Order: sequence, then structure tokens, then C-alpha cells
Amino acid sequence: MNFLEERIKKDGRVINSNILKVDSFINHQIDPLLMEKVGNELANYFQSKNISRVITVESSGIAPALMTAIKLGVDLVVMKKRTSSILSEDLYQTKVMSFTKGEEYTLTMSKKYIKEGENILIIDDFLANGEAASGMIRIIEEAHANVVGIGILIEKSFQPGRKKLEDKGIDVYSLVRVKSLSNGKVELLEE
Amino acid sequence: MNFLEERIKKDGRVINSNILKVDSFINHQIDPLLMEKVGNELANYFQSKNISRVITVESSGIAPALMTAIKLGVDLVVMKKRTSSILSEDLYQTKVMSFTKGEEYTLTMSKKYIKEGENILIIDDFLANGEAASGMIRIIEEAHANVVGIGILIEKSFQPGRKKLEDKGIDVYSLVRVKSLSNGKVELLEE
Repeated sequence: MNFLEERIKKDGRVINSNILKVDSFINHQIDPLLMEKVGNELANYFQSKNISRVITVESSGIAPALMTAIKLGVDLVVMKKRTSSILSEDLYQTKVMSFTKGEEYTLTMSKKYIKEGENILIIDDFLANGEAASGMIRIIEEAHANVVGIGILIEKSFQPGRKKLEDKGIDVYSLVRVKSLSNGKVELLEE
Repeated sequence: MNFLEERIKKDGRVINSNILKVDSFINHQIDPLLMEKVGNELANYFQSKNISRVITVESSGIAPALMTAIKLGVDLVVMKKRTSSILSEDLYQTKVMSFTKGEEYTLTMSKKYIKEGENILIIDDFLANGEAASGMIRIIEEAHANVVGIGILIEKSFQPGRKKLEDKGIDVYSLVRVKSLSNGKVELLEE
């Protein structure tokens, strides 16, 4: 088991067969040293891809994406779930349905922070149905930039996200692949 | 001028006499190396205060708060602006009015991630009217923990936030103090 699998076995809580709570170290309380390790690991995996920018979506993607961007030495762009007053100019927007939360939101980013032809790494905390990742990819493709990979902390491998992304030819690297959350237990996918 | 004042002079954009846009390096695109410097500086200032946890509010507080927490070697808690499915248990909640955005939200955190008597450092990107900081303080005080200081990237010194917090006896440390945004220009407060 790697460091994140061990931490999930220790501190993750299975709420039901779909929901794994990691709010004590990833998405409400955050363990900064764990995030540093996550960033190092994701950056190492993708470092040969000539990445010029990391992109994530607010708000639980920010910590791992920031640590990955530091290690790669590139800027991070945080796509917004709501249009705020800081974003009043030329925008890319696309609608995303979150099945986990049962709601739709408009993913938004300024056109200024992505350039044609550049290589983008997407980072997010969870991959389930792949809706958020697919929304980010739509925007990156609209900008004629390249998605060179997606780095994920926790993949729910029993949901279709990975397959959707691999069908587009994208390299998906997940630190933890969860095979099942049945019977109140985290079962990991054997590599 | 310190490194953040220099960056604001170079890349900040004055929208009107109330709004300074820093979306190219702080709150939409993020410069990770700048955030590392910010975290080091805030951690150095507060390091003698025996801090056991850093608290911020989603989402633009996360990057500087994470870098400060790494340097201090403590966990970070991100207060939520919306109650999500990850927060279904015992919660602290308080209403906050954002004058800058012209909207009200409910600041929320789980009771599990704050302990009676512990020393909390609050980090946020902007201090204007002090409404977000005051909301965080109400929750921390409800939990009978101590606010040992507030670290801010950019203070709009022409708005009442600092005074409100100092009146409560709180140590406010802002990396940049903006005296005025009149006439399309950033005027800094002379120390």
C-alpha cells in the first residue's frame, strides 16, 4: 500500500456504498504534509510531459493541485463553480452535473489564463463519474490546448469516470483506486 | 516595498476605487512560488504563538493558508461557504454578509476539527470590511478556542476590517496595506 492508501484505511470513513469521507485529511481539514507528498508523487509521474500549467476546480482540488504546481514550477489555474465579480471579462464556461452532490453548476475560467497549444495537467481530489474532469477538458479543448494527463487522489473505480477519460486517450493517474465501498469497507483495486 | 507589494504594483489591476483585481497571481491563476513566500512570511511572523491549527475560508484563502500551515507544521481547516454532503454531522454555523460580493452566505465547519483551548491562526487573502474574519472568529470563540492572530495578503486599509479586529484585541498582520485605489492607482500605506 502507498502512503495515501494507508491513510485512507486508517482515517477514511465509508458512509455508504457510494460515499467515502476523507474530511479529516483531504477536503475539510487538510494535512499539509500529506498534500506535499501527493504533489511530489503526481509531479514525478507527469514530469516528462512538458507541462506549462496545472488546472483544477474549486475548492478541494486546490491543495493537491498547488503542491503539484510548486513541484513542477508552473502556475495553477482554479476554475470557478460560480461566476464571481473577479471574473467579468472573456470567459470559457460549460455546465457540469455533479451526480455525487445532485446539482448542476457552471464551470468558469478566464480566457486569459490558457494559451493555444500549451500542455495542461488536470488535478482533482476525486474521480467518480468524470463529470468535473470532462467539463475541464471541454474548456481546455475549446482553447485549443492539450490535456496531457489527469492526476487524481482517489478514484472510485466502480464508477465510469476513468473509462470515459481513457476513451478520449487521456493518461489517468490515480494515487488510490477504490474497487468497492460495499459492506462498510474500503476495498482497493489490486494493481 | 516587499515582494507582494512589488507584484501588486506590477500585475494588480484597479477596477474602481473599491476593487483591486489580483486574478493573475492570487485568486484565479495562482503563482505557487509567490504563495510559498507568502506562507513563509506569515508563518515566521506568527511562529512564536504556539499555533495548533490554521483556519481559512474557501476558496481563495486555501493556497496561502496551506503554505502557512506547511511551514508551521500544523493542520489546516477550510471553512465552507455552503453546507455540502461531506458535512452532515455536528456543525458550527454563522451567517456572513459579503459587502464586496453583495451576498450572504453561511460559514460552516465541523465541530470535530477545533478543540477547546487551542491556538488558532486565521489566514485569508483579503481584509476589507472584516465580515469573513469576524464570522470565523465567532465560530472559533463558540468552540472556546483562541484566535492568536490573523494573517492577510492584502488589506484595504480604507475599509474598517482592521479596526474591527484590533478592537477585539487581535493581532492583524497584513503583507500589503492599501491606502487608496482612487484615480486608478494603488497607493500603499507608508509604515
